Amino acid sequence: MVPETENLQQFIAKCAEVVDSKLDKLVPTADIEPIALHRAIRHSLFAGGKRFRPAFVFAVGNVFGVSNDKLINVAAAIEMIHTYSLIHDDLPSMDDDDLRRGRETCHKKFGEATAILAGDALQNMAFQAIVDDVGLSAETRIRLVSIIADASGTPFGMVAGQQEDLTAEGQEITIEQLEQIHRAKTGSMIRVSAQSGAIIGDAGDVEFEAITDFAENLGLLFQITDDLLDVTQSTKTLGKTAGKDISASKATYPAVYGIAESQNMAEKVHEKACRELARINKPTQLLRDVADFILHREK
Amino acid sequence: MVPETENLQQFIAKCAEVVDSKLDKLVPTADIEPIALHRAIRHSLFAGGKRFRPAFVFAVGNVFGVSNDKLINVAAAIEMIHTYSLIHDDLPSMDDDDLRRGRETCHKKFGEATAILAGDALQNMAFQAIVDDVGLSAETRIRLVSIIADASGTPFGMVAGQQEDLTAEGQEITIEQLEQIHRAKTGSMIRVSAQSGAIIGDAGDVEFEAITDFAENLGLLFQITDDLLDVTQSTKTLGKTAGKDISASKATYPAVYGIAESQNMAEKVHEKACRELARINKPTQLLRDVADFILHREK
Repeated sequence: MVPETENLQQFIAKCAEVVDSKLDKLVPTADIEPIALHRAIRHSLFAGGKRFRPAFVFAVGNVFGVSNDKLINVAAAIEMIHTYSLIHDDLPSMDDDDLRRGRETCHKKFGEATAILAGDALQNMAFQAIVDDVGLSAETRIRLVSIIADASGTPFGMVAGQQEDLTAEGQEITIEQLEQIHRAKTGSMIRVSAQSGAIIGDAGDVEFEAITDFAENLGLLFQITDDLLDVTQSTKTLGKTAGKDISASKATYPAVYGIAESQNMAEKVHEKACRELARINKPTQLLRDVADFILHREK
Repeated sequence: MVPETENLQQFIAKCAEVVDSKLDKLVPTADIEPIALHRAIRHSLFAGGKRFRPAFVFAVGNVFGVSNDKLINVAAAIEMIHTYSLIHDDLPSMDDDDLRRGRETCHKKFGEATAILAGDALQNMAFQAIVDDVGLSAETRIRLVSIIADASGTPFGMVAGQQEDLTAEGQEITIEQLEQIHRAKTGSMIRVSAQSGAIIGDAGDVEFEAITDFAENLGLLFQITDDLLDVTQSTKTLGKTAGKDISASKATYPAVYGIAESQNMAEKVHEKACRELARINKPTQLLRDVADFILHREK
């Protein structure tokens, strides 16, 4: 199925605009001391990221009839957590990457110490952005912080996944281990983006579960297509170092299954994700479009 | 004035016992994957830290008549944030320290990547421990996360202070800059420990302000005595590398004022702190004992 490219791309562009404007308000300006720290934070935060996770918060929230002003803080918070993880993952002791989103990584430009602190500050500001969101009830804010902390922490979240990824580097791992790593490292934050929209939208239990399953499949789809893009696209198109996974002999779908079979898997996961949407008693075309978009994305 | 050493040391020992037991429950055990990450977290968290900040939460909370079970999660959370900051501050790109609390620093034992992730996970778990504390109202939890995020973040909190400290290294700085660095880096977390106890204890505005001023002076006192201990005590007594500040030519009170004048300053700050307690309409002897304890501490 061909994605509704035009509408969805407009939607994503609009989300990026809204979330960028909110992030600009939440983060200290670059003329406030300590200047190096705030410049470093802004360097990584405003580097032309796709804002996929915020768009996903908005998409699910919109399906549940929530207005954007109730979604914007948590969307910005999730993007801050994503950005902090990229800054730390790029460090020399981690993935040691020089290029991210088409520009120098944070530590290349500002030094390792400032990059570590920039990441620390972004995690901090993310949780603050949620608890300070007076548009949501205290109970909703509590639930959001808790579920997002789970998704970005350990033992099941993003930080655990990054640790597992480091441990697995250069080792033979099973496909179950590979999927477990992706689920924790990438999938959990994509899942919680969708869940946040559903929580703010007062989704019932069945709908919350359907959104969770949909998002988990989408997270897997995102990872498979990410791995595929790494081997099929150039560094220039990606804005990060292409072929990086191969040179570091990291476990990827194409490395384990080959390119053709990985593409086949991507289609099956996409189908499975879309089947979950039937359990949601709302117009879900927007979410189907998101799934299509990820399947067919070129960067 | 001679401190009520025996009673207060019993109180601090009891607080340490209670907070250690809670931390043990909050942090994944070392046999849960990813094992290296959880071992690293526990290595730094259970390294015989003084648990001064948790004791301060308990002391203020007790003055306001709060039972320990309502204070324990936030006390543990503040200790987790303190520990994450130590792990990151010790990294080679930051203070590059090999020894902390008498044992190898986290990155010396587990590698830099795992140490960075251990710090990230601890910050995450800290906020989660507060929002998951069902013994407190949602509003109280929200207020605690917000004020603790302020105190540990940027531009006025701990992360900002660490950045300013790094920038100041090897430079001539004024005493105003020195105090600003300490206020952000160390003072803010000590202040928020006291404020947290006061918030949970439903302190009125005047009392909250008095506790804030008391704690700010105590934070300053803590830093002056810390700087003094660095030049007057051996590495063995301190459990961290003594003379470190001098060898790194960092700005310290003894470096700027000399030892005798720094000791004189410590006594004046102590006096000022204790004067604030008169504004609190509760028995505050416990807080006076804490102030005495910091003035006279030997490690």
